Amino acid sequence: MNETMVTMTGWVAGEITQRRFEGDSQVTRFRMVSQERRYDPETKDWVDGHSIFVDVQCWDRFGENVAADLKRGDPVLVHGRLRCREFEHEGVQRVALEVRATAVGRNLRFAARPDVPLPLAA
Amino acid sequence: MNETMVTMTGWVAGEITQRRFEGDSQVTRFRMVSQERRYDPETKDWVDGHSIFVDVQCWDRFGENVAADLKRGDPVLVHGRLRCREFEHEGVQRVALEVRATAVGRNLRFAARPDVPLPLAA
Amino acid sequence: MNETMVTMTGWVAGEITQRRFEGDSQVTRFRMVSQERRYDPETKDWVDGHSIFVDVQCWDRFGENVAADLKRGDPVLVHGRLRCREFEHEGVQRVALEVRATAVGRNLRFAARPDVPLPLAA
Amino acid sequence: MNETMVTMTGWVAGEITQRRFEGDSQVTRFRMVSQERRYDPETKDWVDGHSIFVDVQCWDRFGENVAADLKRGDPVLVHGRLRCREFEHEGVQRVALEVRATAVGRNLRFAARPDVPLPLAA
Repeated sequence: MNETMVTMTGWVAGEITQRRFEGDSQVTRFRMVSQERRYDPETKDWVDGHSIFVDVQCWDRFGENVAADLKRGDPVLVHGRLRCREFEHEGVQRVALEVRATAVGRNLRFAARPDVPLPLAA
Repeated sequence: MNETMVTMTGWVAGEITQRRFEGDSQVTRFRMVSQERRYDPETKDWVDGHSIFVDVQCWDRFGENVAADLKRGDPVLVHGRLRCREFEHEGVQRVALEVRATAVGRNLRFAARPDVPLPLAA
Repeated sequence: MNETMVTMTGWVAGEITQRRFEGDSQVTRFRMVSQERRYDPETKDWVDGHSIFVDVQCWDRFGENVAADLKRGDPVLVHGRLRCREFEHEGVQRVALEVRATAVGRNLRFAARPDVPLPLAA
Repeated sequence: MNETMVTMTGWVAGEITQRRFEGDSQVTRFRMVSQERRYDPETKDWVDGHSIFVDVQCWDRFGENVAADLKRGDPVLVHGRLRCREFEHEGVQRVALEVRATAVGRNLRFAARPDVPLPLAA
């Protein structure tokens, strides 16, 4: 109850990985970037604005479908629960954004984009 | 400004149609159904709950991608502007829900469903 | 599960009514209008665009808070489940949009607006 | 274009601050916490689950209304653009979540809560 649901559009920004747990459940994950676009009146063109990187998680059969259909650079549409995960990295408390996906699809609005920005090193 | 954005998951509930206008713009449309699922404690099973039918519209190249990738019965994830269109049908004022899509994808959470409910006659 | 959640901003477009049921539960309802705003390059001003009317429902104590705080013309922000209710009116099948609210607040972005558009006759 | 919009419900988790810039624009900010609630079958009660802290920003007149109406501990409903701001703190790159609010209201579903969890030290 009271979950923060979010819909994000963007690009698969890393390899799609799968990890199997005991009991045969498994999680499929990928890094996704969503970029605002804003109009630059100087150049009269749209340019990339602010970007958000999130880790998307899909479980079990759903995750297998994702791993079979998507790859780095693909346009993607994700809906799910927003989470803010805290973790320690080299002795420092850090924060990472996650989306526990309830629905994922290749975004048919766009073709694949070869030059998806890489996530900053964590 | 102040648009009502909505994300819907469900199924393509009709044929995908395309219509070309002068000037070479075109709109691709399909009927979609989104169904709530609720747990029935009597039968201890999930059953279909309330359903919403909407007309989804995708323009130009985006619409061509949709028409090439989706067909009736496919699971779908749609994000866009919600609109409530009024029209007259046999002398009676009616209301239909539309979504002007900004993103559409085949929902990888599910496989295709052969028994998608038909929309009620308008 | 699989509910269509929606967030709408707009104005309270009618009186706020309350109805009590046996067993002491009660529902508070009001009509709300959400209007898109678009920039008119001719007049160089923002004008009202497409509008959506919905019936908002709040239950029990939540509804009492709503009835105590809001009145016709107030700016409002609503989050909840979107429903499409079908009903018969004078022998004709009709459709009405409802939001079963999970959260409602007076929208602090705006002051009250005396000229909220009236809903069209059902 | 392509912004990630989010609707969050929760509690004002800190003081509301205002800062004025040259040219008379001003920003009002507050820290907000949104907590998932989950049912614990052991105790048969709802317990606090995962929580998200965000910085909410409201500009100018909108922000003045927020500062006049809300205070720490109040239930709140926020809609706006999700942003992930990176900053350096004691030589370490950190990430903070922001919502550039387009609508904010006191959530009439709840009364004020005196024991709102404090944000973790950044």
